[in-house]
Amino acid sequence: MMRLLQTGATLLVGAGFGASVSRLLGVRGRKEEEEEPGTPLGLLSKVPVLPVPRVQASELTVSPGGSGAVMKYGFPSLANIKTRESYVSSYDSRTRTASWVIERLTPASLNGPSDRKYCNFKEDESIHIFHRATNADFKGSGFDRGHMAAAANHKWSQKAMEDTFYLSNVAPQNAWNNLEKLCRSLTRHYLNVYVCTGPLYLPSQQADGKLYVKYQVLGRNHVAVPTHFFKVLILEKADGKGVELRSYVLPNEPIEEKIPLERFLVPIETIERASGLHFVPNIMKRTSSLQAITAR
Amino acid sequence: MMRLLQTGATLLVGAGFGASVSRLLGVRGRKEEEEEPGTPLGLLSKVPVLPVPRVQASELTVSPGGSGAVMKYGFPSLANIKTRESYVSSYDSRTRTASWVIERLTPASLNGPSDRKYCNFKEDESIHIFHRATNADFKGSGFDRGHMAAAANHKWSQKAMEDTFYLSNVAPQNAWNNLEKLCRSLTRHYLNVYVCTGPLYLPSQQADGKLYVKYQVLGRNHVAVPTHFFKVLILEKADGKGVELRSYVLPNEPIEEKIPLERFLVPIETIERASGLHFVPNIMKRTSSLQAITAR
Repeated sequence: MMRLLQTGATLLVGAGFGASVSRLLGVRGRKEEEEEPGTPLGLLSKVPVLPVPRVQASELTVSPGGSGAVMKYGFPSLANIKTRESYVSSYDSRTRTASWVIERLTPASLNGPSDRKYCNFKEDESIHIFHRATNADFKGSGFDRGHMAAAANHKWSQKAMEDTFYLSNVAPQNAWNNLEKLCRSLTRHYLNVYVCTGPLYLPSQQADGKLYVKYQVLGRNHVAVPTHFFKVLILEKADGKGVELRSYVLPNEPIEEKIPLERFLVPIETIERASGLHFVPNIMKRTSSLQAITAR
Repeated sequence: MMRLLQTGATLLVGAGFGASVSRLLGVRGRKEEEEEPGTPLGLLSKVPVLPVPRVQASELTVSPGGSGAVMKYGFPSLANIKTRESYVSSYDSRTRTASWVIERLTPASLNGPSDRKYCNFKEDESIHIFHRATNADFKGSGFDRGHMAAAANHKWSQKAMEDTFYLSNVAPQNAWNNLEKLCRSLTRHYLNVYVCTGPLYLPSQQADGKLYVKYQVLGRNHVAVPTHFFKVLILEKADGKGVELRSYVLPNEPIEEKIPLERFLVPIETIERASGLHFVPNIMKRTSSLQAITAR
């Protein structure tokens, strides 16, 4: 079933950025090459929409955005897990950034008395000093300290917001936040919005015809500047009609506001291959109704 | 004590390759800058040689090179651990190579009836197909499939040798094996030789004055070509006089036979910072007599 689902997802990608990332990564579904071109409707029917699992009432009673709730769809990997008030993350001690950060957004988590002006970026002292980013590493680099779990997603508690300011929840970033805004707006249409964010280090072809991964490192601690970021959105439908999956890859550079975010949708397989992480197997343990959205 | 030890190690590095790697990584001990130049003997005295722990007889009875024995000095990290007949490794699903491989060499592990001609490189089916290197990835790349735990270290059992042919114990490599030969020869002088080998992805300064990590990736699965490899040798002295530590960083390129391997010795801190791994804290749990050798 997964095979079919992911083939379907690949087929829906269209000619946008997503398709070019997939090609770059060498993950074009084989089916794609065998299919006749110009039959999009026939292909759409291959995305399975299966019977409806009911959401348990007990799952609705956890605290807004709390890290306990975040675990529902499992972890994409198991190394260096950190559980914080507002998110759960896995830390990559070589790149000095998280491999992924998962948070859960609801209307309740987005609202509250928290004030960003009391928050400062801070070293994560749970990480050995050899492997930890510091504020000095970012200074004068030209890169922002980009939150993976965004501060504005966790107004529900001051502690929850402050926890997003650990530098282990940060990666060097060129500003873009349209996708963050979209995540928040989706809380109006879905029961729960799970967001998993992480860095990617994607290869590109150079003049010699070979593929290279190349990324800058900042400061004394060599904090890696990701070439791209992914966001995987697991959307629980408010009417109990299962789970929707949207997966995005964005370059780590300023993006024109007017480019529609749909252009950055990619098949989940693209992110799973490039990041070394897993999403689909864990999600499938919790629902038999997963609909992958790669174009609208 | 660790602080002193590591400062001492940095000081002993001299003007060779090790020093330039340290400088590149920005890990020059602060002490180094404060000290008067030209006082090598005074500095040597700062390497602590502390009281002698006795090796337990029970530690000598495990099977030669067996993975049970390998755990004595702990693991440098805890992600994706694989225990094999001849080694223990931690797999990095993003780079498609191991982060580290530990093996234990003794005269007994180096000898036996095993024959390399019955061994073939093979995919590691314990790894998800998205994150696994294949033989096809290496084909025509110009890179060898370089063992991290070397086949010749595990002649003691055919299974032990065959296990070194998993592609999860392999990284794309330009041939060098003088250091492997040194490891084997050290079994004549030490009770046990623990060898931990792994890839490094070191940054270098480019024309714009910034530091970049750049490495090639091979094949459909984008198997990373490390820029360097490390080898950390934990040497148990035969007379029970404690533990000696030697740590090397070698570039992933052909090295002239005549260059002495001492030139590639670096302070262990250099490897700990660059790899995101830990060695010293685990070793210190097992001995109070650790002597770091960074020049002979």
